[in-house]
Amino acid sequence: MNNQELRLLKPGDVVQSFYLIRAVDCKTSSNNKKFLDITLVDQTGEMNAKLWDCSQQEEEDYGRHALVKIKGTVSEWQSRLQIKIDKIRLAVPEDGLNIADFVPVAPKDGNAMYNEVRQYIEEIHNQDLQKIVSYIVNDKKDKLLVYPAAKQNHHAVRSGLLYHILTMLQMGEKVSQVYAGLNKELLFAGIILHDIAKLDEMDAGDLGIVSEYTVEGELLGHIIQGIKMIDRAAELVGADKEVSLLLQHMILSHHYEPEFGSPKRPMIPEAEILHYLDIIDARMYDIKKVLETTPTGQFSEKVWLLQNRKLYKTSLKGNEDIKDPF
Amino acid sequence: MNNQELRLLKPGDVVQSFYLIRAVDCKTSSNNKKFLDITLVDQTGEMNAKLWDCSQQEEEDYGRHALVKIKGTVSEWQSRLQIKIDKIRLAVPEDGLNIADFVPVAPKDGNAMYNEVRQYIEEIHNQDLQKIVSYIVNDKKDKLLVYPAAKQNHHAVRSGLLYHILTMLQMGEKVSQVYAGLNKELLFAGIILHDIAKLDEMDAGDLGIVSEYTVEGELLGHIIQGIKMIDRAAELVGADKEVSLLLQHMILSHHYEPEFGSPKRPMIPEAEILHYLDIIDARMYDIKKVLETTPTGQFSEKVWLLQNRKLYKTSLKGNEDIKDPF
Amino acid sequence: MNNQELRLLKPGDVVQSFYLIRAVDCKTSSNNKKFLDITLVDQTGEMNAKLWDCSQQEEEDYGRHALVKIKGTVSEWQSRLQIKIDKIRLAVPEDGLNIADFVPVAPKDGNAMYNEVRQYIEEIHNQDLQKIVSYIVNDKKDKLLVYPAAKQNHHAVRSGLLYHILTMLQMGEKVSQVYAGLNKELLFAGIILHDIAKLDEMDAGDLGIVSEYTVEGELLGHIIQGIKMIDRAAELVGADKEVSLLLQHMILSHHYEPEFGSPKRPMIPEAEILHYLDIIDARMYDIKKVLETTPTGQFSEKVWLLQNRKLYKTSLKGNEDIKDPF
Amino acid sequence: MNNQELRLLKPGDVVQSFYLIRAVDCKTSSNNKKFLDITLVDQTGEMNAKLWDCSQQEEEDYGRHALVKIKGTVSEWQSRLQIKIDKIRLAVPEDGLNIADFVPVAPKDGNAMYNEVRQYIEEIHNQDLQKIVSYIVNDKKDKLLVYPAAKQNHHAVRSGLLYHILTMLQMGEKVSQVYAGLNKELLFAGIILHDIAKLDEMDAGDLGIVSEYTVEGELLGHIIQGIKMIDRAAELVGADKEVSLLLQHMILSHHYEPEFGSPKRPMIPEAEILHYLDIIDARMYDIKKVLETTPTGQFSEKVWLLQNRKLYKTSLKGNEDIKDPF
Amino acid sequence: MNNQELRLLKPGDVVQSFYLIRAVDCKTSSNNKKFLDITLVDQTGEMNAKLWDCSQQEEEDYGRHALVKIKGTVSEWQSRLQIKIDKIRLAVPEDGLNIADFVPVAPKDGNAMYNEVRQYIEEIHNQDLQKIVSYIVNDKKDKLLVYPAAKQNHHAVRSGLLYHILTMLQMGEKVSQVYAGLNKELLFAGIILHDIAKLDEMDAGDLGIVSEYTVEGELLGHIIQGIKMIDRAAELVGADKEVSLLLQHMILSHHYEPEFGSPKRPMIPEAEILHYLDIIDARMYDIKKVLETTPTGQFSEKVWLLQNRKLYKTSLKGNEDIKDPF
Amino acid sequence: MNNQELRLLKPGDVVQSFYLIRAVDCKTSSNNKKFLDITLVDQTGEMNAKLWDCSQQEEEDYGRHALVKIKGTVSEWQSRLQIKIDKIRLAVPEDGLNIADFVPVAPKDGNAMYNEVRQYIEEIHNQDLQKIVSYIVNDKKDKLLVYPAAKQNHHAVRSGLLYHILTMLQMGEKVSQVYAGLNKELLFAGIILHDIAKLDEMDAGDLGIVSEYTVEGELLGHIIQGIKMIDRAAELVGADKEVSLLLQHMILSHHYEPEFGSPKRPMIPEAEILHYLDIIDARMYDIKKVLETTPTGQFSEKVWLLQNRKLYKTSLKGNEDIKDPF
Repeated sequence: MNNQELRLLKPGDVVQSFYLIRAVDCKTSSNNKKFLDITLVDQTGEMNAKLWDCSQQEEEDYGRHALVKIKGTVSEWQSRLQIKIDKIRLAVPEDGLNIADFVPVAPKDGNAMYNEVRQYIEEIHNQDLQKIVSYIVNDKKDKLLVYPAAKQNHHAVRSGLLYHILTMLQMGEKVSQVYAGLNKELLFAGIILHDIAKLDEMDAGDLGIVSEYTVEGELLGHIIQGIKMIDRAAELVGADKEVSLLLQHMILSHHYEPEFGSPKRPMIPEAEILHYLDIIDARMYDIKKVLETTPTGQFSEKVWLLQNRKLYKTSLKGNEDIKDPF
Repeated sequence: MNNQELRLLKPGDVVQSFYLIRAVDCKTSSNNKKFLDITLVDQTGEMNAKLWDCSQQEEEDYGRHALVKIKGTVSEWQSRLQIKIDKIRLAVPEDGLNIADFVPVAPKDGNAMYNEVRQYIEEIHNQDLQKIVSYIVNDKKDKLLVYPAAKQNHHAVRSGLLYHILTMLQMGEKVSQVYAGLNKELLFAGIILHDIAKLDEMDAGDLGIVSEYTVEGELLGHIIQGIKMIDRAAELVGADKEVSLLLQHMILSHHYEPEFGSPKRPMIPEAEILHYLDIIDARMYDIKKVLETTPTGQFSEKVWLLQNRKLYKTSLKGNEDIKDPF
Repeated sequence: MNNQELRLLKPGDVVQSFYLIRAVDCKTSSNNKKFLDITLVDQTGEMNAKLWDCSQQEEEDYGRHALVKIKGTVSEWQSRLQIKIDKIRLAVPEDGLNIADFVPVAPKDGNAMYNEVRQYIEEIHNQDLQKIVSYIVNDKKDKLLVYPAAKQNHHAVRSGLLYHILTMLQMGEKVSQVYAGLNKELLFAGIILHDIAKLDEMDAGDLGIVSEYTVEGELLGHIIQGIKMIDRAAELVGADKEVSLLLQHMILSHHYEPEFGSPKRPMIPEAEILHYLDIIDARMYDIKKVLETTPTGQFSEKVWLLQNRKLYKTSLKGNEDIKDPF
Repeated sequence: MNNQELRLLKPGDVVQSFYLIRAVDCKTSSNNKKFLDITLVDQTGEMNAKLWDCSQQEEEDYGRHALVKIKGTVSEWQSRLQIKIDKIRLAVPEDGLNIADFVPVAPKDGNAMYNEVRQYIEEIHNQDLQKIVSYIVNDKKDKLLVYPAAKQNHHAVRSGLLYHILTMLQMGEKVSQVYAGLNKELLFAGIILHDIAKLDEMDAGDLGIVSEYTVEGELLGHIIQGIKMIDRAAELVGADKEVSLLLQHMILSHHYEPEFGSPKRPMIPEAEILHYLDIIDARMYDIKKVLETTPTGQFSEKVWLLQNRKLYKTSLKGNEDIKDPF
Repeated sequence: MNNQELRLLKPGDVVQSFYLIRAVDCKTSSNNKKFLDITLVDQTGEMNAKLWDCSQQEEEDYGRHALVKIKGTVSEWQSRLQIKIDKIRLAVPEDGLNIADFVPVAPKDGNAMYNEVRQYIEEIHNQDLQKIVSYIVNDKKDKLLVYPAAKQNHHAVRSGLLYHILTMLQMGEKVSQVYAGLNKELLFAGIILHDIAKLDEMDAGDLGIVSEYTVEGELLGHIIQGIKMIDRAAELVGADKEVSLLLQHMILSHHYEPEFGSPKRPMIPEAEILHYLDIIDARMYDIKKVLETTPTGQFSEKVWLLQNRKLYKTSLKGNEDIKDPF
Repeated sequence: MNNQELRLLKPGDVVQSFYLIRAVDCKTSSNNKKFLDITLVDQTGEMNAKLWDCSQQEEEDYGRHALVKIKGTVSEWQSRLQIKIDKIRLAVPEDGLNIADFVPVAPKDGNAMYNEVRQYIEEIHNQDLQKIVSYIVNDKKDKLLVYPAAKQNHHAVRSGLLYHILTMLQMGEKVSQVYAGLNKELLFAGIILHDIAKLDEMDAGDLGIVSEYTVEGELLGHIIQGIKMIDRAAELVGADKEVSLLLQHMILSHHYEPEFGSPKRPMIPEAEILHYLDIIDARMYDIKKVLETTPTGQFSEKVWLLQNRKLYKTSLKGNEDIKDPF
């Protein structure tokens, strides 16, 4: 069977495909009947769907992260598409499906990226740095393989955090070639750990879909949690105090502005660069995503994540030739 | 002998008294001779002094924190008073002086205040809170007895931090009577620990005079250091995780605004109150200090610490009658 | 009969109870029929209700502040509950109801609170202060007994302004014990009068429900109106000019920041404290209200009134034991 | 004798002229001798002067607002000119001088301007407006004739406030011709009264030189004082309440932004225009003053009053031909 | 036939009139049928309308800028009025209608205003200024006759830009009489050209209704485009460099604040005045529009364009007598 | 002779060396004698110097950009070093000196860098981009070889602009390897031209020392000037309109925030990257400069250019080994 991609659906389409339930809510309609208000996802996007007049059994069956086959029609409601579900059933083993194929994922495989990151770690010859980073990356390996980098913003896909780290490591290597005075090892360590506590801040499950923030995530946030994680790891592996302190400072300052969560601005050049590599990678990711759906020679809608800017898709040759842009 | 209080000196006065050297700098004058540029303090204030044409020996003798007897005259230079030193010598045991008498101090004795704080701790019946607070207060007792609450702002006097904590505890008790739903024990714990890492952020020596910030203080700041301190103490005493987390959140949020160093705003009522008790105590301290030298019915100069406001000293009866204002 | 509390209603409930009409609007539906769009209130909350296909007579009967008995069903519409009214009638004397029992009210009785405030006024021995405050409080007694402190924010309940004043007076007494240099009498006077012109700024009727702001309220605002009120009262009772001026300054500066309506910041310590007592009481009120409906160990929704923060309900013992929190 | 204009003095000049002492301070030099630190003014500018080694008698003679003849030399000290006084004496009747000739004044005579303003008042046919404005202008006539519009900013010259009002009235007349819906009478009244309480906010003496702000000026400010002034005048003359309220609103909102002292923005078109006429007149005054001393084709220094802008003096023909620019 | 003005329609009205289609969108309803979502305009306002179950033919016929006759009924949907269309047809020549009569227009005729502007240009005797302005105004005449001054804000009507320019020229003449030092010719030239590149920034068609911004408008904006336009025109007509530079500076600085698009603040008095005349004219236009529909003695809704202020319609005599207010 | 480097001088040093006069001002001292207030520079730094009691001849001889030999002594005045000149003479041909050796210069030779930039230009295969960039770089070659990138900020050294461009081009190449979708050619063109109009904005002479901004630089600024430069060049070489427009947009948006001079934010990915490469290069330059004089393990003074941060010099191995840091 040919599964229909969510991002290609149009009003009036009849749809008959498998999707993952990302979120579901049982509500009561104005005529006092229950219905399921469902968010369906596949790797290409997400869409709202309604299962009207649902039974008690259906309410129990079709929960969060269930893989379902639906039949229905697409309509438009207040400028947004939604599916009215006519038939629905749970996927069964015979369907031969893998749930992970229904979650938006990073362009590279999690395990492959993990190994690449490990190679960068091996380039860190300073033993104190090496031990702290290795300890934490090993300790967090399971989550690191699947977690996104954010709940909704940039890199909010499965293994998104690893992908973000890896791209930044590539940039870190390049930047160190131009600005030769930078301590490359400290920069690598900072890149790998800068968002590591997002693994504790968010609750993302095996599928790498964030459902909510943890209590500690809400009360402290991943920057503070990351500092504590390094503080403890450094003590455990017996690392030098200054090395640990510098890493903590890099985590603390990488959002740069107090109003974005960094009470201290970067005081060492590696922290300064870490901030810019982080923001560049986030911006390139978001821009690429917007331009993918913008026709050449036209402007996108205003993008909230990019300070409400519109983006323009140029017609310059070269952009078209590249297979894997950005 | 009658030591002349620095705050009472006027242009033209001849001065012959003991003072403490808070800071000293050896400079070269335009006629190419060395002189010492000295900051003298006693408990009432501070004043600049010059020792012209100083010798190598004098440069060595009159260092930071030396207690000296000087003879000189007071003049005015660019609207500020300064002393031209004619004679100077180090204080000797025969002078029968105590160096601590030459440092601005809090209105109450350090040990007495420490005991009062201990009594508040005994009112904390929640064992997790109790153990964390006790552990830290014991561990930091030596510094706590003498440290100021800041380098230059409010409570920048010997034992100033203890005085700040104690007044806030008194207020905390009162507030808990009016807003009965507040958890008084959590509030007490938060008050005692809210600035505790200033002991690690600043380097203040035995005299409680801050000379500079520590490296960790500059790179992380006392809010982050305080969170780490609680994190470790809680682990050591085996305290409940939520209790530790709530205390860390109170430290993190007590500056309230990101641009003042709190990446998270208060999310529990005790953290909200902690912030206001902190700011009220700082403001009352600063206002009192300004009004002490403002004549009745007149305005002070603009006060930088108070958003450049002038203050007004009212002539209402009552203010005059009180012996120990504020 | 058992009146069903609005805050306890759930989708699907059948409701048969008395409520007060807080606001009502006659609209025309898409099928061109008239319906009443009603806001119902009781002391526990408020809820939208629809009376479809209403007659001319119904439109006239069910106006603002009418007490009605309805029968209907609760459903959910765009995440908010609403009642579809099947039957409706006006309450009649035989129902034995008191309209004031259907308005959210302060936790204490208006008259009792008024008497408590009068006792605080008796503690003001400065005759100038005493006369100004007494004159205004007497003059405004009728409105003071029932007015809320705001249209929608904190203390937006019947007699809410009195409750706000009274709690602040209790705090004022406590604070004066800790910071002994404060002129308690001036502080009391400032507390009692700080929002007094809200009685002129808003139009709240006998029930203490604000329908709108007055023309003068819109064009000048309660801070300016309060200053004029004191200015005139002081002249009438022949009070000392400085006393009147200080009170006016306290009113003017109590919002602290120009962007919140105070062109001058506090210049006397009593004005400084007045501001913080005001904001603490507003915050405690709002926080208490949010936490009442937040389950232990969980976060509230984002609260717009509290800079869009979420609040956290801790599980610390002690909070549970207290009967009348805050 | 030819009095030398202060603005024309250069380093090295020998000066022998009469000037007014605007401010004076007796200080003690580093060699412990008294000297007078004097600010001299004439109509063209001001300059610092020093009278070294002054006697007790000299300290008494040469006080604020004394008219003196000095002989001395001009030098440069830290980029600013100052006069070293060699000889000094008080002016005597035989010198035939008028003290008012030594104060910077508005370009028009105070009494003439007052009469012009009275003519504008006669154009106000609305009796309520007319009576309020007349009452206040009569009541304040003495100060109005000489007061400046500010202590240091625009129109800080003798009769400067009248000049400011008069120019704005001329503009008000013009604007009413273009935007015919404006109520010209209300606009005139607002213009005349918008800064009237500066007469109470500042203490400027007969010479129209502001020495300081009054206590009420500091604690409330001229906007609030102006509202109270209108409130009382309207009651005294029995004016209509709305008319009084609209005038008060115009005063309240004429600074436009809360951070500049207006808690309410203009809500009627006449208040909107009042604000712009006020700011245009201030800007034109300040710009004219700066460009008078800027050579053609060059930039001025940065002007603090104009948001630290530099101004450019164009070489366009036309500018040169005009006798009385701006 | 009597065409019903859109601004007078009420819920329940039956409407049978001609309107212009400003915008139209073909959508699919929840029951999977197509419908047209139309914005109708006449000279008095605009309203949404729905043509349900539309055919392929109807979708093609009723496009943007079509003039149609509709029959339908007005209802209210979420506080906004909309028309349910029962019958619709295109206007035909026999209807004897002029499409331009269905577009909101400036109060004066485009050609008449153009000629008035030309007269002002003749008053510019400086040949360099004259040539630049004439060249551009001639070159852009076609668009200038019909373009609005904005897409949605002030003067968003046919010939609105010309009306804005003309009113500002009248004000410029008046202001030059009061502040005689202003170079009137430079001011006139700046007024005429200040927004001229809006003709290139927006795409407004013959009807003067802006549909969208041009690519260059989005990427550079009318301020930058205007500078380039003057730069080229000045070169073409051989104008003096300083004159061209001053005009460019006036365009660049006329929004005054960097955050509103002016990287440089005004540095010459004519640029300063240009800014204020621009903002005054925009404000008077917006205020007039709001007050036209506000009952006397009442407040308008909050107006987003005016920093979310409400406006008040006073009852002062005079306002009522004027035929053509503002 | 051994010329003493300015940055190594200490109070008390006797100095006998050649320096360049960067700026000079003839002033009059308090004892009414003329003296020269001189700013001396060499390639290592700058220092103030005084030539007391100077003659008319000396005033004429020692002007801006004169190369002089001085003998004098170094003293400290208000925490800054200055030289009291005892002897001074102009350098003569026999001294065998090259004036350019006394100006701070970029680490690479101007001509060599120019050739490197030309090689990057050859990599731009898009003919429109190529022609525009080539035209401008050729046209401005003379100034480009020597101009600094700023008057006082980063890269304020001879050939500083070229050095800034070249480092950014290296980074641009690297970034294009990681984010493969970027149009490298457009990015190169944007990098080369982003600050090119600084050559017209500033007046820097042959030595590459900026004395002041040009009139056009003040009134328009280099961003606007750069856009006009590209606009004209594109027309001259007959380049495609979109290419020219995209380049202009890159110039316009490269300061990113309106308050820093960019009325439009980047709307294409190459403009986004241009901004970050610009800021990274400025920051790395400033940080390197500060850390060069900061001892290991210590903090620098607060650096105004870096938002008043202190920087920390780490002791991590690696930093020490690198010969040419950054």
